Amino acid sequence: MNLPLSFQDIQAAHDLISPFVHRTPVLTSESVNEIAGAELYFKCENFQKIGAFKARGGVNAVMSLPKEQQKNGVVTHSSGNHAQAIALAAKMAGVPAYIVMPKTAPEVKKKAVAGYGAQITFCEPTQQSREENAARIQQETGATFISPYNDYTVIAGQATCAKELLEDHPNLDIVIAPVGGGGLLAGTALSCHYMNPTLEVYAGEPEGAKDTYLSMQAGEITKVDKPSSIADGLLASMGYKNFGIIKPLVKDILVVTDEEIVEAMRLIWERMKIIIEPSCAVPVAALLKYRAPFQGKKVGVILTGGNVDLAKLPF
Amino acid sequence: MNLPLSFQDIQAAHDLISPFVHRTPVLTSESVNEIAGAELYFKCENFQKIGAFKARGGVNAVMSLPKEQQKNGVVTHSSGNHAQAIALAAKMAGVPAYIVMPKTAPEVKKKAVAGYGAQITFCEPTQQSREENAARIQQETGATFISPYNDYTVIAGQATCAKELLEDHPNLDIVIAPVGGGGLLAGTALSCHYMNPTLEVYAGEPEGAKDTYLSMQAGEITKVDKPSSIADGLLASMGYKNFGIIKPLVKDILVVTDEEIVEAMRLIWERMKIIIEPSCAVPVAALLKYRAPFQGKKVGVILTGGNVDLAKLPF
Repeated sequence: MNLPLSFQDIQAAHDLISPFVHRTPVLTSESVNEIAGAELYFKCENFQKIGAFKARGGVNAVMSLPKEQQKNGVVTHSSGNHAQAIALAAKMAGVPAYIVMPKTAPEVKKKAVAGYGAQITFCEPTQQSREENAARIQQETGATFISPYNDYTVIAGQATCAKELLEDHPNLDIVIAPVGGGGLLAGTALSCHYMNPTLEVYAGEPEGAKDTYLSMQAGEITKVDKPSSIADGLLASMGYKNFGIIKPLVKDILVVTDEEIVEAMRLIWERMKIIIEPSCAVPVAALLKYRAPFQGKKVGVILTGGNVDLAKLPF
Repeated sequence: MNLPLSFQDIQAAHDLISPFVHRTPVLTSESVNEIAGAELYFKCENFQKIGAFKARGGVNAVMSLPKEQQKNGVVTHSSGNHAQAIALAAKMAGVPAYIVMPKTAPEVKKKAVAGYGAQITFCEPTQQSREENAARIQQETGATFISPYNDYTVIAGQATCAKELLEDHPNLDIVIAPVGGGGLLAGTALSCHYMNPTLEVYAGEPEGAKDTYLSMQAGEITKVDKPSSIADGLLASMGYKNFGIIKPLVKDILVVTDEEIVEAMRLIWERMKIIIEPSCAVPVAALLKYRAPFQGKKVGVILTGGNVDLAKLPF
């Protein structure tokens, strides 16, 4: 298998970002284990800087730029967590951050990005408007564009999350993560592959944005027209760099409905007393729905983030 | 000072309950520290069994009964967390639990008590109705009544929480807890007194149920007529056994409004991604409001519980 990132690349990313991000705790819950019929180990990236795993990829992408290039700043488009990640990383590096956000992004995420001192440009909530605005800013400022997910430095950063989980719990049988653009899933699959080749990697994906599911069925990237789900962090389309890693390494994509996502989110809030966002509840919903592959197994679950607008809860 | 419980009593309680309850983690948050101007160490009893510290006192009270007495079961009245604690402890001990709950108690708490197999009797939401029903059941069944807070075995159990906090972080300058009936505050004050006599203990109390504040001012137990607050776990009146401990050992009672409680609760949810109930936000609201005693200090904050009705959030 010809993989674009080695374990040494992931280790280097981990060394680079460790001073800037948290090593997040792994929590367990007897009552959720009972409900799932499995032994679950929750890697709590909701406790990560910016409240989501994207701090890892963002910090790695910004910090690994050559100093000359870094000083013109960085630009990206994102509806939320990646925006915060780049804004935070730029602040830590002392360089400007230009963030294009759809004007429909959750208030809590807009406020957080502004809080890190980034310059925000609001755009229409379409891929085209996002990309056009980012390209214009790139041209005007000389800033480097950092893709939310289709970027090997971002993937290497996200891979550090599963790396820590497997360092803490080497005996896991399965790891499950959500999939949107695929940066986290690709990184997770790489770390698992290098650290324990017999471990199986699954992903949960929302029914209304199941492009990864369709892509795996077809064997090639297949888009979904107008993706839509309460899991607003998972609407991005699979990046080709990620798919090259996911296709050979991921066992299965498990599709869940918005209703199942909200139910899983509520279960985690009620039983574990931690706040997770809808996108983060997707793998939990998947393992509660599909059950069979997980029964009696030790399962690592990547809880990706906890940035929810408390004024707009789905309960 | 003539104190009714020794450090050995607290150690014995800790030994007895340790197999049955969690040693909860202590979390920190840079962003909350910045806002508070202090170094805060949050003892997360919202992650405790039943989602609240009351598991400690409840388990200690039930498990330390003589076997002969235990087998007739236990009875109590409680609007929530103590009810769950006694129900859980009775289940673990294999004896019947009879719980009197006001019919207005939060749904999530009623469900949880029923889930532990306890026999619930619903009563009017008055102290008189609660006590009458409990007394009747006690007579009919021979079960032992366990007070939610005015009981030395309960106080010794609650004391184990601050004991763990000080074992993990011996250099704290201050510990702050909420106060309702006073079991937790009395136990906290005792552990702090024995483990570090120079440490100061504060409590937060809701404006609408400030009987402890008034009692400390008067030097004797002073009741509040019709206590009322969003902090529904703190409406009970100070027990005389607790007051005998709190009066000499607690530095000050800091009163906060319901609005300040909701704001503090929201801050913890948003910044720390953990779920705390309104009663639990009271000491956080107190240290954000009164500021001066806490500036630059290392402050232990007892986060007491996370049992909220997600359908009735104050945001």
